[in-house]
Amino acid sequence: MHPITFYQEIISKHFSTLEIKNEPKNLYDPIKYILSLGGKRIRPVLTLMTTEIFNASYEKALAAATAVEVFHNFSLIHDDIMDDAPLRRGNETVHEKWDINTGILSGDAMLILAYQYFEQYDPKIFRELAKLFSKTALEVCEGQQWDVDFETRDNVTILEYIKMIEYKTAVLVAAAMKMGAIVAETSEENANLIYNFGLNLGIAFQLQDDYLDAFGNPETFGKQVGGDIIENKKTYLYLKAIEFGKPEVKEQLLHLFSIQPKDNNDKIATVKEIFSTTGASNATLEAIKQYTQKAFLTLEHMTIEQNKKDILKAFGENLMGRKV
Amino acid sequence: MHPITFYQEIISKHFSTLEIKNEPKNLYDPIKYILSLGGKRIRPVLTLMTTEIFNASYEKALAAATAVEVFHNFSLIHDDIMDDAPLRRGNETVHEKWDINTGILSGDAMLILAYQYFEQYDPKIFRELAKLFSKTALEVCEGQQWDVDFETRDNVTILEYIKMIEYKTAVLVAAAMKMGAIVAETSEENANLIYNFGLNLGIAFQLQDDYLDAFGNPETFGKQVGGDIIENKKTYLYLKAIEFGKPEVKEQLLHLFSIQPKDNNDKIATVKEIFSTTGASNATLEAIKQYTQKAFLTLEHMTIEQNKKDILKAFGENLMGRKV
Repeated sequence: MHPITFYQEIISKHFSTLEIKNEPKNLYDPIKYILSLGGKRIRPVLTLMTTEIFNASYEKALAAATAVEVFHNFSLIHDDIMDDAPLRRGNETVHEKWDINTGILSGDAMLILAYQYFEQYDPKIFRELAKLFSKTALEVCEGQQWDVDFETRDNVTILEYIKMIEYKTAVLVAAAMKMGAIVAETSEENANLIYNFGLNLGIAFQLQDDYLDAFGNPETFGKQVGGDIIENKKTYLYLKAIEFGKPEVKEQLLHLFSIQPKDNNDKIATVKEIFSTTGASNATLEAIKQYTQKAFLTLEHMTIEQNKKDILKAFGENLMGRKV
Repeated sequence: MHPITFYQEIISKHFSTLEIKNEPKNLYDPIKYILSLGGKRIRPVLTLMTTEIFNASYEKALAAATAVEVFHNFSLIHDDIMDDAPLRRGNETVHEKWDINTGILSGDAMLILAYQYFEQYDPKIFRELAKLFSKTALEVCEGQQWDVDFETRDNVTILEYIKMIEYKTAVLVAAAMKMGAIVAETSEENANLIYNFGLNLGIAFQLQDDYLDAFGNPETFGKQVGGDIIENKKTYLYLKAIEFGKPEVKEQLLHLFSIQPKDNNDKIATVKEIFSTTGASNATLEAIKQYTQKAFLTLEHMTIEQNKKDILKAFGENLMGRKV
């Protein structure tokens, strides 16, 4: 096994030398652009790592890892259009740099390109990978639709919210790992266990993102602290506060999430206070712990060497150990 | 072999009973809507017909035919957004009935759904179908990009124009037929010959569309006659007129294709006159004939019974025999 940083370097190098067609320029330039913006490349790294966890060489998994990352970037282009986002990884979004039509068409091409990377595998593996990929990609679309729907709904349940983040975020992490298992041709049981490991860790990670958005340290958290509160996003924290809060607190929160003041400092402070006093923040930390534990439990049933389990657990602990 | 009308009924029935998920509604309702608008369903019909040409039952090809039609409708949703088209098959376009974001996301889901229909085949056939499909889908994207690029270019060559309609339209007709060949497990040679049959017939069909748009009988041609002239579209007729016209005629045509008068009758009449006198309209008819002949020539090399060849030829003649 190699350390995570090794896989990161492999992926980084692989994408910097990835051959994408040149013509038509207006179709392929935006694809090269978004792929050049980098990012953490967590998903393809997980595919390579999982392949070696199941005793095959990471090199066999490079094509599948590429597919996962290209798909992820396709979804970013289309999501950024839908969210009217001006920036992505500190740079102009594709539809800002070009236009919406270019973003739509280049995104479409990336979704197709992602499937093409699987063609490097034999029919049996190809079919397994493409099937998992289609199921996952469709779930990501469903998750995105639910996220959009939730914006205008005031009766979203915790279960619905978990399902949304599961589909929008966690299934791709899970699939990225299962693809490694498929490429390594491990048992179906191991492949399903590593999928559940990724799924639960993915949910825990997204819940932690919700938590850190409010309670993270501005100096170490990558994004603007309080961003979700400013945008009136109904996160896990918000839903739990609505569930736990007394009628007057609930009313106050509903009001705060209906306004968009110029100066958000007071709003952020009050909302955080509500998240803490209602017990919503503790409930969120508890949920993060539970999903992380659930991920780790899947390892017990996996038929791999103990040192491989230790590596997966260390990876999970490292991922969830982001400083608040 | 069954008559064409038989396959049309099969496809029509198949789509009227096709099961599409219900939730999330805003993702799947637009998909059901666009698929319910009907259309000629030429592509899936060709898949079924080709399967029987190569001596397998059309039933084996239903899933592949569905994939082709679902993909075609995906491309219509996204193209309609890009063209800002209000109507499709006489009904509101998806982005008009819902909104642009819904059109983008439902379109994405349809592209993925199309791949899923191939999962009904065994690994070897699945891989062949998905591979052909990805290649074709990417070419359709490239064709659409070239079409967009050509709008703002004044040096488009005939060769480039043919390549554009080949990618934007003909490759999907060709792939629809080759999928029938793949499902029927005929020889690779036959599969490639039927692909070329579909490709050349598809180009001929699109050139005929260009011709009929100007010279068709308003009573029998489905669309508004002169539509391309009103929209200043650089069709085969236009490019040939620019190539053949004397400097003053060329200048007149360039001027006419730079204006958008309220009353288009004079403009249409003058442009048609130019198309005729420069020889552009005859050159277009000649090109249609040549591509049709090229399609028919591929039949000679195909190792199938003569009556099957006759059916394909009759189909081609029927398709190209649309009244002017």
